[in-house]
Amino acid sequence: METIKIYKIGSGLLDDSEKLAEFLYQFSKIKEKKMIIHGGGKYASKLNSILGNEVIFHDGRRVTDEKTIEVVTMVYAGKINKSIVASLQKNNCNSIGISGIDGNLLIVKKRNPIPIDFGYVGDIEEVNTTFLNALIQNELVPVVCSIAASNGELLNINADTIAKEISVALSKLYTTELYYIMDKDGVLQDANNDASVIQKIKSTELTQLIDSKVISEGMIPKLKNAFDAKQEGINKVVITSATNVMQELSLKTEIIS
Amino acid sequence: METIKIYKIGSGLLDDSEKLAEFLYQFSKIKEKKMIIHGGGKYASKLNSILGNEVIFHDGRRVTDEKTIEVVTMVYAGKINKSIVASLQKNNCNSIGISGIDGNLLIVKKRNPIPIDFGYVGDIEEVNTTFLNALIQNELVPVVCSIAASNGELLNINADTIAKEISVALSKLYTTELYYIMDKDGVLQDANNDASVIQKIKSTELTQLIDSKVISEGMIPKLKNAFDAKQEGINKVVITSATNVMQELSLKTEIIS
Repeated sequence: METIKIYKIGSGLLDDSEKLAEFLYQFSKIKEKKMIIHGGGKYASKLNSILGNEVIFHDGRRVTDEKTIEVVTMVYAGKINKSIVASLQKNNCNSIGISGIDGNLLIVKKRNPIPIDFGYVGDIEEVNTTFLNALIQNELVPVVCSIAASNGELLNINADTIAKEISVALSKLYTTELYYIMDKDGVLQDANNDASVIQKIKSTELTQLIDSKVISEGMIPKLKNAFDAKQEGINKVVITSATNVMQELSLKTEIIS
Repeated sequence: METIKIYKIGSGLLDDSEKLAEFLYQFSKIKEKKMIIHGGGKYASKLNSILGNEVIFHDGRRVTDEKTIEVVTMVYAGKINKSIVASLQKNNCNSIGISGIDGNLLIVKKRNPIPIDFGYVGDIEEVNTTFLNALIQNELVPVVCSIAASNGELLNINADTIAKEISVALSKLYTTELYYIMDKDGVLQDANNDASVIQKIKSTELTQLIDSKVISEGMIPKLKNAFDAKQEGINKVVITSATNVMQELSLKTEIIS
């Protein structure tokens, strides 16, 4: 099977235009099939605050009210998505920026407001692999932002989960490699020591890492997605920084079954 | 040849969510191939003003500085584009929201700042008909917003011109009908009388209509685009309101050679 490399990028990289440009330049040179999945950066919270909307997080996940979904749609699907695609086109990497709504890429359901009302947030029921693969086979590089819709309502979707679900769906057609890009070079044993990257994590070690607080807050859903991805048949799941993944240096956390 | 119906919608319709929903519902029921091209509405100016950016117009065209291009990208490619696509998907009309950047749909050039510096504004050099037609042939309804890019820079493109250029490009493959949707039912002989719609305008009459101030301001580039479209081989060019075009009533201005 042909290989596809899927990169999930988020805050940190998206907030640093120079670093992002360097990443997109290196990404453009990848010869294998490839795609990007992105959320937002700090700008969505900033714009929300300028507009007087309150920003609430719960377990590292944003609570999305009616005004906030409008802001995140503008920032994710507008500003960020189109800036990424414009950079890629400049690098002669023919890409297409889409959301989960376009071509019915993601069939989602608004999350049940009980026990916690996350607002305009959805969960993925199905990935439209036929549509996505048609783009890929047409030599287009998909750049997917974490917005979808159900019954005409715009919904915020966790970008780590989109990356996992899309990778699982594509793993039926491709040898799939999923890279979660973050600021640090991998999962750190000691939060104060950037060199303490845990090189491999087994699924049996996850609970222990959470219990001992090595993994906390936003890293918990990320790690859970990474393990689910591995268990659902993705060939390679890596958590690392943009610098490490592009230069194939040794510092990274690989998720193993 | 198969028929394609191309609708350019803008301010007025985009600012009235109820009217827009009704238009999109009727649009979804059209059996022929179809697509939408849209600019922004009043919200871009509103957001610009909230963010403290100045809004300048010149001959009915927006002057786009660095902050403004960021705002219009958020509003056009984010908020408006994704809301339209979400509504269409709700109506079981499988659509894809794109800008001129995606799939290199529009090859554009930043406008020469001499004699007037319009800022981050571009002019169309070429339409990527192969890419656009691939979407259409895959039963996807394109929804195109008026943002493009050149050399990595986001640029604002006049939506009326995009509608014209795309219609001309597709007229090699389809019998093409172009509908410019506006608030009034057509071009009015008397601005104070909504019933005074001029039913047909010939290209030879355009200069006279401008000289006699029947056509002024933003309508001048719109009409010029409409005439160019007709002269470059588009089968039908109509200027009318959303109500009239969807219900096929008689009130409309048709552009004739």
